[in-house]
Amino acid sequence: MQSPLAQLLGLSGDLHIDFVESPALAGNPLGDPSRRPVIVYTPAGYDPGGSKRYPVHYVLHGYTGNAAALIGARPWEVNVAQWIDRSIAEKAMAPSMLAIVDGFTRLGGSQYVDSIHNGNYATYTVRDVVGHVDAHYRTIAREGGRSVLGKSSGGFGAMHLSMEHPGVFAAFASHSGDSYFAYAHPIAFPSVHRVLEGHGYDFGAFVAWFEAQTKRKSEAYATMEMLGYAAAYSPRSASAFDLDLPFRRDTGALDDAVFARWRAFDPAERAGSRRKELERLRLRYLDCGRRDEYGLNVGARVVAERIRELGLSVEHQEFDDDHRNIGYRYATSLPALTAVLDLE
Amino acid sequence: MQSPLAQLLGLSGDLHIDFVESPALAGNPLGDPSRRPVIVYTPAGYDPGGSKRYPVHYVLHGYTGNAAALIGARPWEVNVAQWIDRSIAEKAMAPSMLAIVDGFTRLGGSQYVDSIHNGNYATYTVRDVVGHVDAHYRTIAREGGRSVLGKSSGGFGAMHLSMEHPGVFAAFASHSGDSYFAYAHPIAFPSVHRVLEGHGYDFGAFVAWFEAQTKRKSEAYATMEMLGYAAAYSPRSASAFDLDLPFRRDTGALDDAVFARWRAFDPAERAGSRRKELERLRLRYLDCGRRDEYGLNVGARVVAERIRELGLSVEHQEFDDDHRNIGYRYATSLPALTAVLDLE
Amino acid sequence: MQSPLAQLLGLSGDLHIDFVESPALAGNPLGDPSRRPVIVYTPAGYDPGGSKRYPVHYVLHGYTGNAAALIGARPWEVNVAQWIDRSIAEKAMAPSMLAIVDGFTRLGGSQYVDSIHNGNYATYTVRDVVGHVDAHYRTIAREGGRSVLGKSSGGFGAMHLSMEHPGVFAAFASHSGDSYFAYAHPIAFPSVHRVLEGHGYDFGAFVAWFEAQTKRKSEAYATMEMLGYAAAYSPRSASAFDLDLPFRRDTGALDDAVFARWRAFDPAERAGSRRKELERLRLRYLDCGRRDEYGLNVGARVVAERIRELGLSVEHQEFDDDHRNIGYRYATSLPALTAVLDLE
Amino acid sequence: MQSPLAQLLGLSGDLHIDFVESPALAGNPLGDPSRRPVIVYTPAGYDPGGSKRYPVHYVLHGYTGNAAALIGARPWEVNVAQWIDRSIAEKAMAPSMLAIVDGFTRLGGSQYVDSIHNGNYATYTVRDVVGHVDAHYRTIAREGGRSVLGKSSGGFGAMHLSMEHPGVFAAFASHSGDSYFAYAHPIAFPSVHRVLEGHGYDFGAFVAWFEAQTKRKSEAYATMEMLGYAAAYSPRSASAFDLDLPFRRDTGALDDAVFARWRAFDPAERAGSRRKELERLRLRYLDCGRRDEYGLNVGARVVAERIRELGLSVEHQEFDDDHRNIGYRYATSLPALTAVLDLE
Repeated sequence: MQSPLAQLLGLSGDLHIDFVESPALAGNPLGDPSRRPVIVYTPAGYDPGGSKRYPVHYVLHGYTGNAAALIGARPWEVNVAQWIDRSIAEKAMAPSMLAIVDGFTRLGGSQYVDSIHNGNYATYTVRDVVGHVDAHYRTIAREGGRSVLGKSSGGFGAMHLSMEHPGVFAAFASHSGDSYFAYAHPIAFPSVHRVLEGHGYDFGAFVAWFEAQTKRKSEAYATMEMLGYAAAYSPRSASAFDLDLPFRRDTGALDDAVFARWRAFDPAERAGSRRKELERLRLRYLDCGRRDEYGLNVGARVVAERIRELGLSVEHQEFDDDHRNIGYRYATSLPALTAVLDLE
Repeated sequence: MQSPLAQLLGLSGDLHIDFVESPALAGNPLGDPSRRPVIVYTPAGYDPGGSKRYPVHYVLHGYTGNAAALIGARPWEVNVAQWIDRSIAEKAMAPSMLAIVDGFTRLGGSQYVDSIHNGNYATYTVRDVVGHVDAHYRTIAREGGRSVLGKSSGGFGAMHLSMEHPGVFAAFASHSGDSYFAYAHPIAFPSVHRVLEGHGYDFGAFVAWFEAQTKRKSEAYATMEMLGYAAAYSPRSASAFDLDLPFRRDTGALDDAVFARWRAFDPAERAGSRRKELERLRLRYLDCGRRDEYGLNVGARVVAERIRELGLSVEHQEFDDDHRNIGYRYATSLPALTAVLDLE
Repeated sequence: MQSPLAQLLGLSGDLHIDFVESPALAGNPLGDPSRRPVIVYTPAGYDPGGSKRYPVHYVLHGYTGNAAALIGARPWEVNVAQWIDRSIAEKAMAPSMLAIVDGFTRLGGSQYVDSIHNGNYATYTVRDVVGHVDAHYRTIAREGGRSVLGKSSGGFGAMHLSMEHPGVFAAFASHSGDSYFAYAHPIAFPSVHRVLEGHGYDFGAFVAWFEAQTKRKSEAYATMEMLGYAAAYSPRSASAFDLDLPFRRDTGALDDAVFARWRAFDPAERAGSRRKELERLRLRYLDCGRRDEYGLNVGARVVAERIRELGLSVEHQEFDDDHRNIGYRYATSLPALTAVLDLE
Repeated sequence: MQSPLAQLLGLSGDLHIDFVESPALAGNPLGDPSRRPVIVYTPAGYDPGGSKRYPVHYVLHGYTGNAAALIGARPWEVNVAQWIDRSIAEKAMAPSMLAIVDGFTRLGGSQYVDSIHNGNYATYTVRDVVGHVDAHYRTIAREGGRSVLGKSSGGFGAMHLSMEHPGVFAAFASHSGDSYFAYAHPIAFPSVHRVLEGHGYDFGAFVAWFEAQTKRKSEAYATMEMLGYAAAYSPRSASAFDLDLPFRRDTGALDDAVFARWRAFDPAERAGSRRKELERLRLRYLDCGRRDEYGLNVGARVVAERIRELGLSVEHQEFDDDHRNIGYRYATSLPALTAVLDLE
C-alpha cells in the first residue's frame, strides 16, 4: 500500500520519511538537531517481508537545501525520487533504492565533513544514516551495494566521503560539485566582506538578521554560504560562530593561510593523493554545465585530469547549461551508478 | 500520532494527503485526472473521535502551481501549512484547519472557473472538495465555518468563487490576485504572439514542446499562461486546444471581442455588480505588493474601490514588495479570516 | 579641409555643428532654449562653392536622446554619421547629406509635435531646421530632395511629420517607432503611478529630483517618459508641468479620456485616415525587432496593415533583435530612402 | 571664439581635437594607428597669445573606451570636460586644462604600458602626448604642472605611469582602478575559456568575429578584455595575437606562471616597492565604489594600505555605488589634484 505522499508525487514506488537519532551530531556546538530525517525511496515491487535486496543510492543535497527540499514537487519539474522512479519504469536501470540524507545546519549546510564547529556530518552520514537504512530496509548492505551522489555541495560531499571514508560506497556521481576553489569561492569574497562589514563582523548577529528576513538577496545568501564553508573548512573552535574567514577583515584581501585550509578540502587539490581510495571505486562520475556560474566546469575538468593522472578512468561529461535546476542529470547518473553496483 | 510528513515540516499540527474523485472533472476534454489530491492541515489537539469542530480555510494555489507545490519546504522558507501552524502556536489565531485545493491543468491552471474546455473547476472546488472535507473531518460544515484564500491566480479564484458561488464561504482573502486585466495581461501579448508564431500557432504542438523541455524560459511560461487563461475565459469548444486568444494571429494586436470575454471575468469589472454576493461575506480582504510586476496593486485598489462604492467595507493592504515569494502575507490573512468565522 | 571632429570619427565626409534660432520654440512654457544645434553631415566631395546639390535625410533622435548623443562615438559602435559615410563609401547609396535635429526638452523629448506645453517642435523641425539647412548648404531644396527618419520616438516623429506636415519630406523610415500605444505605454503606468505617488504627484518636484540624481533607475526614466508624452499628447495648459496623465491618481487605473487623447497621435490609429498624405510619399519604410520590449513590432505590423488597406505599398521589415542599439538598421534604411529621392 | 563642439556641450571653456603622430607607436605589431587624437580642454579665459600658463590633467579612458568616447554627451549625463568646466565655474578649483589621451588598441585597450605586442603606450603618453600638449598650449610645462587620472583601466594607467615613469606627473587619481588582480580577473576566466574554446583558441579569428558582430554579449567583451590584458602583461612575441593567457587551454585552470606576469603589473603588488616614485608625488588619490563588480574596492584598500606602510599619506575614499557610470567622481578628484599643482 503506497503512501499518500508517493501518490501525490505520482510514483510507482514508495517514499518513506524516517528519522535517525545520530550520535555523531549529538551536542554539536551550533545547536542543530541530532534527530534527522532520512527519506527513503523503494521501487515498485519492494517487499519488506520478501527476500530480494536492493542497492541504495545515497543522495546529498546542495547548500541551502535539505532533505525535504529534494522531494519538493512542482508542475513540470521532476525531483530525484521521480527521476529514479521514471528511470526504473523505463527500464533504463535496475530497481534500486534512494536514501536522501539531511546535511543542513543553521549556517545552511555542513559540506558533509566532520567539523569541530558543526558536528561530525561525515560520520553521521556514513555510519548513522547508512546504519539506519541497512537496519530497516532490504538493502545490499555492503560497499558493493551503495553509491553516493549529489549536486553542488552534494557533489562535493559525494567526492569527499568517497575519498575520506573509503569502503562505504562503491561509486560516486558529482553533478556540478564544488571544486577548484581558486575560482569557485573568491568571486564572492568582496561582496561577503561588504555584507559582514555592514554587520560589524558579528557572525551571530548576521545569522539572526538573516533568519528574521522575509526575503533575502543573493549577497545575503552568499554571505551565509561563506560562513558555512568556514564552519566546515576553517573553524577556530567548538564555539558557535568562532570561525576563520579566508579574507582579511580590514581590506577584504585574501588570507592565504585560511584559504589554504579551505583548499585542503578541494577535490581538485586532494584527488591526486587519494589513489588508493579512488581506485577501489567502480565508477567515478563527474559532470558540470559548460556555463556554470562558479566555474565548476573547470573544477570538474581538473578533478578528472587528476584522476586520469593516477591511471584511473573517470566518466566526465559536460552539458550546455548553468548551475541551476539540473536535476535532469540524475537520469544519466542513476543508471550509470546502478550499472556498477551489486544486484540480486 | 503525527504523520512523518508533518514531522519533516516541523509542524505541531498534522498534515493529511487525501484524494477526491470529482464528478465535476470527469471526462474533461483536456484529459486531466478527475482524481485529485486535497491536502488537509489539522491543528494540534485535533481529535477525529472528539467532539470539537473547526473552521476550514480553503487554499487555492497560483498559476503553474499545484497542491503539492504549496507544501514544498525549503530552509528559511515557510509554507502555508507552516504559517498556520506557527500562527496558532503564537496564539495569533484560534486553531483552524486548512484544505489545500488542487486546480492544476495541463495548461498550468484552471483559474477555478467552470469551463467547457477544462472542466468545471469551480463546481469541483465548492462541491466535491468541500464535500469531501466536511465528510471526513470534524469541520464546522457551513458557510460560517469556511473561508477561501489564495495568491495570484489563487487570489482570483478566491474572489471568483465568493462572487459566483455565494453561500459556500463566509470570507475571502486575495493576495496579489489577478485583477484589472487591462494592465495585467496585455504586457505579455507581444512576446506570446511571437512564441506562438514560432510554433505555427499550433497550441497542442507548443504544449508538447513545452512539456519536453528540461528548462523553460519566462516567455514560454507566459505563453502557457495565456493559453490557460484562454481555456478558462474564452474556450471555443469542448475540444482540447480549441481556444480563442485575445490578440490577432496576423499582427498580434488586441482582439477586442475576445478580450472582452476575458474581462467579463475580471474582478475589477465584476465586483460592482455583485453586491448581494459580496454583502453576505463577513470579510473581504485584498492585499498586493506595491511593486507587483503585473500591476495587480492597481487591480487591488480598483476592486477595493468597487466594493466600497457598493457601501461595503473592505480590508485592503499594500506592502513594499513585488509579486514573488509573498507567503509571509498568510500570517496576516489567516488570523483575519479566522477572526470572522464561527468557532466552537 | 575636414573638421577635427570628422577626423576623430574617422569620416570621409565632414560634420558641421550649426545653431538655429527657432521662432517656433521662442518663449516655450517649459523654458527650453530656442537656439538649437543642427548637426549636418556632408559627403566626401561636397563643395560649398560648387554646383552640385544633394538630397538630405533629416534624422530624429529617440526619447531621452538629443542631437549630440547621435554623434557620440564608442569603439566598435557605429553612429548614424558613420553609417551614412560607410554606406556611401561602399557605394550602397548615392552621396547624400544628413541633418540631425535636436528635439530634446526638459522632460526628455518633444515627440516632434506642436504642443501648447512644450512649444511647436513640428513647426520648428519642418520650417526652422529645414529652412536653415536649405539656406546654408547645397541641398536639393524641395520635397523630392528630403526624407525623414528616426528610431523609437524618432521613428514616431518621422511618421508624424510625414502625415501631419505633408509636402516637406518625400519618404520616411521608422525604426522601432512608437505605435500601437495600447501595448507600448500601459505597461509602464503602474510603476510610474507608484513613482509619482512617492513624489506627491508634484511633477515639478519629481523633475527637479530626477535632475539632481547622479544615477537614475529605469522606473525613474519611465516616469520622465510618461510626463514627456503627456506634455506632447495631453497638455492641460501652457504652464509648465500642467499635464493630464492617462491614469487616475487614486488607483492608477486608466483614464480613458486622457488615453484617448494620446491614442489620437498613435500612428496605428491615424494612418488609416491619412491616405492623401501617405500617398504622396515615395517610400513608407517601417522596421522593428521581433523582440521589442514595448511590443512595437506589433505596432509596425498594424501601421503597415493600415497603409496597405489604403491601397498603398509599404516596406515593412522585422529583424531578430530587441529595442536597444539597433543603429545598424540605418545601413538598410538610408540606401532605401536615397534610392527614391531626387539626385543631381 | 568657442568651437561649435564646445557650444554643443554647453561649455564655458573650449575643446580642441588635435592629432599626434607618435614615434612610440610607429610600426606596432597589432597594426593600430600611430597618429592619435588628443582632446584638449582649455578653460574660459585661456588665451593662446597671452602670458598665463595652466596646469594640465591628463585623462586616461577605461577599457573598451577611447578619447572620443570620453567627450560623448547624453542628456543628464556629464562628461569629464563638462565636469571640469562646471567645477571651474563653481570656483571649486582653479582654471586648469585637460588632455584626454587615446590608449585604444584593436584588442580594446593598451593599459598604458609599453608592450612588445601592442607598442609602447606608456612612452607614447608621457613623451609624445605630453610633448605635443606642452608644445602647442600654454601649459605649466613641468612635473609640478601635471597630474594624471582615469577610471578603471584609466585608473590603473594613472598609477602605472606614476610609478614607472616618475618625474612626469606630480599627482594621480585612480577611480575604481584595476588592482588586486587576484580578485579582479579570475572571475572572468571560466567564461573566457569557454568562449575561446568555441573559437578553437584562434585569437585572431575571435577578434575578427567580434568586430563583425552588430551586437556583443558581455562574455564576448570579457574575452576581448582578457586578450587585451595578455597583450599588455604577458605577450609572447611581437607578432599579432601571439599571447600567453593566464589559464590553461585544456582545463581552464590557472596558469600560475603567466598569472604571475600579470600580477607583476598589479598596483597592489607593486606599490610596496615604489617608495621613491610614490614619495615624490604631491597627491596619491584612490577611490572606488563599495559595490564594485570586480572587487576593485578591495584593491583600492590594499593599494592604500601598501602606500601607508611606506610611511606616505594617501587620499582614499569609498562611495556607495558600483563600477558603472561614476563620472561624478571627477567633481571630487579634479579639485583635489588642482589644489596640489603649481599655478600661475
